[in-house]
Amino acid sequence: MNAEIIAVGSELLLGQIANTNAKFISSQLSELGINVYYHSVIGDNGGRLKKAIEIAESRADLIIFSGGLGPTKDDLTKETVSEHLGIPLVFDEEALTTIEQFFNKQGRPLTENNRKQALILKGSEVLPNHHGLAPGMILEKDGRTYILLPGPPSEIEPMFQFEVKPRLAARISKGGVILSHVLRFYGIGEAELENKIQHILDEQTNPTIAPLASDGEVTLRITAKADSEKEAWELINEKKSEILSIVGKYNYGVDDDSLASKTVEMLLHNKLTIAAAESLTAGLFQSELAKIPGVSGTLVGGMVTYTEQAKMKQLGIDKDLLDKHGVVSSECASSMAKNVREIFGTDIGVGLTGAAGPEPHGGEPAGTICIGLAIGDSVETRKIQLSGLRNTNRLRAVKYTFSYLMRQLVEKGYKKV
Amino acid sequence: MNAEIIAVGSELLLGQIANTNAKFISSQLSELGINVYYHSVIGDNGGRLKKAIEIAESRADLIIFSGGLGPTKDDLTKETVSEHLGIPLVFDEEALTTIEQFFNKQGRPLTENNRKQALILKGSEVLPNHHGLAPGMILEKDGRTYILLPGPPSEIEPMFQFEVKPRLAARISKGGVILSHVLRFYGIGEAELENKIQHILDEQTNPTIAPLASDGEVTLRITAKADSEKEAWELINEKKSEILSIVGKYNYGVDDDSLASKTVEMLLHNKLTIAAAESLTAGLFQSELAKIPGVSGTLVGGMVTYTEQAKMKQLGIDKDLLDKHGVVSSECASSMAKNVREIFGTDIGVGLTGAAGPEPHGGEPAGTICIGLAIGDSVETRKIQLSGLRNTNRLRAVKYTFSYLMRQLVEKGYKKV
Repeated sequence: MNAEIIAVGSELLLGQIANTNAKFISSQLSELGINVYYHSVIGDNGGRLKKAIEIAESRADLIIFSGGLGPTKDDLTKETVSEHLGIPLVFDEEALTTIEQFFNKQGRPLTENNRKQALILKGSEVLPNHHGLAPGMILEKDGRTYILLPGPPSEIEPMFQFEVKPRLAARISKGGVILSHVLRFYGIGEAELENKIQHILDEQTNPTIAPLASDGEVTLRITAKADSEKEAWELINEKKSEILSIVGKYNYGVDDDSLASKTVEMLLHNKLTIAAAESLTAGLFQSELAKIPGVSGTLVGGMVTYTEQAKMKQLGIDKDLLDKHGVVSSECASSMAKNVREIFGTDIGVGLTGAAGPEPHGGEPAGTICIGLAIGDSVETRKIQLSGLRNTNRLRAVKYTFSYLMRQLVEKGYKKV
Repeated sequence: MNAEIIAVGSELLLGQIANTNAKFISSQLSELGINVYYHSVIGDNGGRLKKAIEIAESRADLIIFSGGLGPTKDDLTKETVSEHLGIPLVFDEEALTTIEQFFNKQGRPLTENNRKQALILKGSEVLPNHHGLAPGMILEKDGRTYILLPGPPSEIEPMFQFEVKPRLAARISKGGVILSHVLRFYGIGEAELENKIQHILDEQTNPTIAPLASDGEVTLRITAKADSEKEAWELINEKKSEILSIVGKYNYGVDDDSLASKTVEMLLHNKLTIAAAESLTAGLFQSELAKIPGVSGTLVGGMVTYTEQAKMKQLGIDKDLLDKHGVVSSECASSMAKNVREIFGTDIGVGLTGAAGPEPHGGEPAGTICIGLAIGDSVETRKIQLSGLRNTNRLRAVKYTFSYLMRQLVEKGYKKV
């Protein structure tokens, strides 16, 4: 089964939003082993949408639409599909009831354009929308499958996961399986990684190995085709061992892991508590940790000390130290880490200071980052130079700190997870 | 001039990353008044890429490629364009020198595949890459313009802005102009907003008005075509006044404004300092503020008090208060705001507590958010119920707080910016 994803919406072509729906659907289809060969984006224009459908029909047998099911005049996906396939639109009673109940509950007036969302392609299988008003639909015609889904990510993602995916999985389970496993690396560049495993990349057939760099990280996706899930995993694991025997020291996780999730996992596993004092990152380190459910078992809290005054008064950083070394210094980062650990009574204290940019700060050029780590009574620091824009530098400083912290913990004999 | 953007990379079709490059380029082209009618995404496959180029040539005269210029074997955009157009690839001496210098400076070995990045289409105008190794290029052939750009956002964005955009602007300045202006709203739903200005939407021709909802906000993009920039602005401003006379109270900003940037602007303008105490958001409020350059004029710092212990010990929240009302309560938020303001000696204190999810917390269901605002000596609170996932709730709580803070400041007589 070959899929094409057609996203409909002028806001995409105007650059107001990114096509994150195509990303989401693709990752889900990839898990099912369904090939996606094309994404297309079309504006709210019936004529151009019709032509795009014709092109998609010439190269895919599964066509998934996102967007254009909403209440407004420029929402015309189902109208265009209806006209193109010669299938009329009819009201779906259940969807209509849901819409009426929603407006009653909210105490908001039901506008006429909201009723339009209950129109469906006659004969299609209706997919209920538990997070919005426009239902999705699946239609079979002339050996092709057309799936129409709403545009907002909060609606399309659960609808795909709970309504579409099981139906597609049931349909393809007769054939073989395709499984995919992602290895995540930090602290090594893409070209350097590839170079180290060039011989493996050169001879790849099944599994295939696809490298990808983004945001300071590199991933390798290993994809295997086999008759059974067990066999596919065997192929993947064999290749994985081979790769990790060469570049294992840069590998920090797999699949949906993130540096933050691995850090939290490792802290929880070793029963360590943590606090942070942040200047340039201003809470981002703690906020990234707090993305992970269960973080309250390790993150006690911390401070944001953005001004020099706050560093002295709230964190107790020595005025002499600041006068001598400046706020962007290893000495300051070290003292921040040490003091925040004491104040919050945790096992670990982290100190982050630097010049985020665009201007230099504390006598140091934009991109200078100083990290202090207090693990127990020992404190160490790292000073690095980044070259990105303000908010890239802030995020990379945080990612670097996660990696630095995990390495130092391993060095001190804590268990890696 | 009609443009199509072709993004090349299997990682996009596998759903590993979203096509943010198409978003960025589209928004830039939209500013120039160049129509983008299609985005396409193709994998690292020469045959399919060739076909996609043929389709693009049938419907666009400006074809912009992103990605596939890197060092690895599956990077084949310029190779495919070269073959398709019958134009050979040659080494660019300047690019080669840059690459060699880069590896010298980093002290990393120069691999053979890195040299490949210095290959360019013969006769093309080379665009220097100041943030990476692969240069971009512009080529004219048979009345069409082909622009090849690297994939990483940190490379393509500055290259487009500083190399491509000025060249395109010079080329189209002969004709009329298209200008676009975005109005940003918070605190009103998309359908409700549209309903209120339905008569304006119904009769739109020039300017056109496009509504868009995302992440708790709604925007209206007003786009005008005219002979001169002045005339276009007159058309836009007339329509803008008409819209704001109806829904002005929900309007918080325009164009690239964000709730955070407007908040920082307003605080700086009124010479107010701010500190925050955060529980469920764990630093996100402060970190979002710190995204804005110049924030050090208002953000002094604050605390993350994730555990009950930290709330009592570091923030001085009363144990009796917590026992009586719980950590997720207006009383706790109020006390957090008041205390953090006192501790950091600022004009404003913000307290954020709640149950981010997925689990209930402090006896309240996931999505319950309590916000405390201490402006001078007066403290007020707001309790809201959100229904998203953990990290959506955390971000929306922060956005809501920005909007709430700005409204309360206006009510207290501070100047809106």
